[in-house]
This record gives sequence, structure tokens and C-alpha cells, in this order.
Amino acid sequence: MSLSKNHIKLITSLQQKKYRQKHKLFIAEGIKVVEELLKSSLVLEKLFVTNECSFDIPVDKTFEVSDVELKKISQLKTPNKVLGLFQIPEQKLLKNNGLVIALDAINDPGNLGTIIRLCDWFGVEQLLCSKDTVDCYNAKVVQASMGSLTRIQINYVDLNSYLSETKLPTFIADMDGENVYKSQLPKEGVLIMGNEANGVSKEIKELAKNVVSIPRFGVKQETESLNVATATAILLSEFRR
Amino acid sequence: MSLSKNHIKLITSLQQKKYRQKHKLFIAEGIKVVEELLKSSLVLEKLFVTNECSFDIPVDKTFEVSDVELKKISQLKTPNKVLGLFQIPEQKLLKNNGLVIALDAINDPGNLGTIIRLCDWFGVEQLLCSKDTVDCYNAKVVQASMGSLTRIQINYVDLNSYLSETKLPTFIADMDGENVYKSQLPKEGVLIMGNEANGVSKEIKELAKNVVSIPRFGVKQETESLNVATATAILLSEFRR
Repeated sequence: MSLSKNHIKLITSLQQKKYRQKHKLFIAEGIKVVEELLKSSLVLEKLFVTNECSFDIPVDKTFEVSDVELKKISQLKTPNKVLGLFQIPEQKLLKNNGLVIALDAINDPGNLGTIIRLCDWFGVEQLLCSKDTVDCYNAKVVQASMGSLTRIQINYVDLNSYLSETKLPTFIADMDGENVYKSQLPKEGVLIMGNEANGVSKEIKELAKNVVSIPRFGVKQETESLNVATATAILLSEFRR
Repeated sequence: MSLSKNHIKLITSLQQKKYRQKHKLFIAEGIKVVEELLKSSLVLEKLFVTNECSFDIPVDKTFEVSDVELKKISQLKTPNKVLGLFQIPEQKLLKNNGLVIALDAINDPGNLGTIIRLCDWFGVEQLLCSKDTVDCYNAKVVQASMGSLTRIQINYVDLNSYLSETKLPTFIADMDGENVYKSQLPKEGVLIMGNEANGVSKEIKELAKNVVSIPRFGVKQETESLNVATATAILLSEFRR
């Protein structure tokens, strides 16, 4: 089958979160990412492929496109042979044990994607996002998180009420906390990472019990704070080591 | 003074490494980055600003541009009021002590920028890049590294000959190495990080004395390797803690 005007309209609309939520669909591009998602429990809706590649999926879900057509529907600068539409799964029930990462208003899709990969590597099974954190089905997040998106449970929640109710010990990453290298870190807990520009919000700071910091070893005072994804990497490593 | 055709030609050419090297100039965009660079020891060549902002610099280096003109010379999707041309400084003499990071064929400008910020945070004073690592004066690297670019000594070298000659202990980050959490790490040494897709090249693997790994805690075998910038974050943290 081939690409129709309605397909183009649908795919273009899915660049916006409100239409992803309306249609319960998201876009994944490129051979590697699409292959990873096809192997997962996600349900494929439609696949648009150029004739250079083929996938082992039902014919009625496959649509052949030319390079020019792929360019029309792709959000990548260099479209990579395939674009898939997958169903957004239902949110699962919250897990309230183990190591939990909670994100407070993370804006950058690349950062969220990197953090999803880190959660996968370090065996974090529950990622909580505040409602104003970037959507994990944003195309750039899908791209940056690779297949990890399918292996991590991600829930969008009201962080304030979650943190007021959880029995787990809570940790905020902030500049003025206890040296993380000298802290006793538990096996189970919630590690909260804040917005790229403003850190963790005031309300959430008041709810969390512990504050941890990564000490700066560079002597130059002007040194910027660490990027939130690299700070998450270091802190997850400290919790797990 | 205002923007001329020759300016546009020059600025556009600086998107390519060969013209940056020919003119010994690079581009920095946006108020925050330009301010950081103006505070540093770098020499400003020319500054193109919209009338919404002003900087305390000599008049003969300032060129007023309209938003439309800025858009023409900018590489950003949303140009941010100012574009500066700075002189690329001469490479300094190699430091051969302390903690050194060596990059083998890092391709992604965002990764290099993040690693430069990490070097700044963790007090790494010498960053070595193989000749085929992305240029640190690439606009995206300048953007991602923020002011850290001006505080870290970066040298592009023949890594093979450097590593055959250095007296420092050498460490490769690789999947099949010693658990880094159980390794005795020295205060001084060279940590070598490899290409995003292929890791450290075979020749360099043969030159390095030690191999360290970050263990995976996630149980799922399909989990991708860590991104090179997040792996660098975790390993630098281990060297310094």
C-alpha cells in the first residue's frame, strides 16, 4: 500500500503532544530504533518503509514510500529508510519499591532520553515524571532513549502528592547538599532531579528528606553546574556501586 | 557599523572546519555563551548584535544587525540576539601530569561539549583529542560546552604516539574490563574514551595498560551500552571520589 494524504496529516499531527494523546500513537524513526521497538511488547500501528529495507510484519500494516515521501513525513534531517507509528501503552500501576527516579520539570528531550537509558543500565524500574516534564513519546526522546523506552516503566504523576505519600526515603540532587561520596545511600529510595535551569522546585524541596551534592573538583569558581543527565549518571552510579 | 556581504560570506564559511582553521576564527551564539567568552582570555574579533542588547566592547568591533540579518548568519533555529566571532587560540604545550582525558574519534558535538563541561567540573586540566575527533570549535560544541571551553586545555594529537610515550598509567573504558568500583584508581593517569559506535580502536587498545568497565545493574540483556558522555561522567567521578 502507499502513502495517502490522511497518513501525512496524521503523522504531522503526531509531532504535537495533544494529538499523540488523542490518537494514542507516537512516531519512531530509523532502522535501529524501529527494530528495537518491533522486538518489544509495543503494538505497531503502521510502518512506512522505502524499498531499500524490509521488515517481517503483516502486509496490511506496511506502506511503501519513496525517499521524497519519507522526507515529507520525517522529522529527521537525514531520514533513515523507515518511519513507524506505534501505540502508546496504558500507564501501568505505580511501583513503590526499589530505586525510583523522579524528574521535576525536565524540559530537554535529549536529557530525558539519556536518563531513560541510564535507568535501563542501572536497573531502575520506575521513572516518575512531573506533569510538566517533556513527553517521553516526543520524537527526540524516542530517538535518544533507543530501545530503553520499552524497558522502563514511566509514569507521569503529581510529584508533590506522590512525595507526600511515599514511604521511601527521598533524595534531592542540589548544589548545597551532603557530599554524595560521604553519604550512606539506601538500596531503595526516590532520587529527585530538577529542571535544567532552576533545579528542583521549592515545594518539592520542602517535601524531600535528604539533599545530596556532587562536589566540584575543578578549582575555577565560574564552572557551570553539571548537566542534569550527567549528574543523574553519577548519582545513580553512587546508589548502585 | 552594519553587516556587509563579506561578513555573511565569512560567517557562513566558518561553519566548516577548514575555514575556521584558515581564518583562525570560530562562532559563538547567544547572550550567555558570548558573555562567558568575553570574560575569558579569548580575543574577540567581531560581535554582531541586535539592538535589544549591548556589550561593553570597543565600537570598531561591534556591528548592529536586524533580527532578519541575524537569522541569516545564525546556525540556531531561534537566534538569540548576538553572534560573536572569536579568535582560535594557539595550542598550548601538552601537560603530561594530573588526570588526562583522551578521546578516540568522538563524533558527536554534543558529546564533546558535555565532556568538556565534565572536565571543567572534575578539574581535568588536559583534554586530548585524536585528530579525527570532532572539532572543539564546531558551533554545537561551543554551545554545549558553555564557558568550559575557555577553561580546559584541549590539544588535538596523534593519540597512538602520545600513548606509546606517556609515563602516566593508561586506562581504557570498555565493556570487558575490570569492575571500576573495585579498581584501585591512581590520582594521575590517562582515561581513554572511544568512538560512539565502535569504542576504542584496536591499535589504542593494544597500547593501554588497564581496562575498566561500569557494571550493568539492569537485568535485561538487550540494554544498550551507556552513552560516551554519561560513561565519562561516571568514570571521572570514580577517579576523583
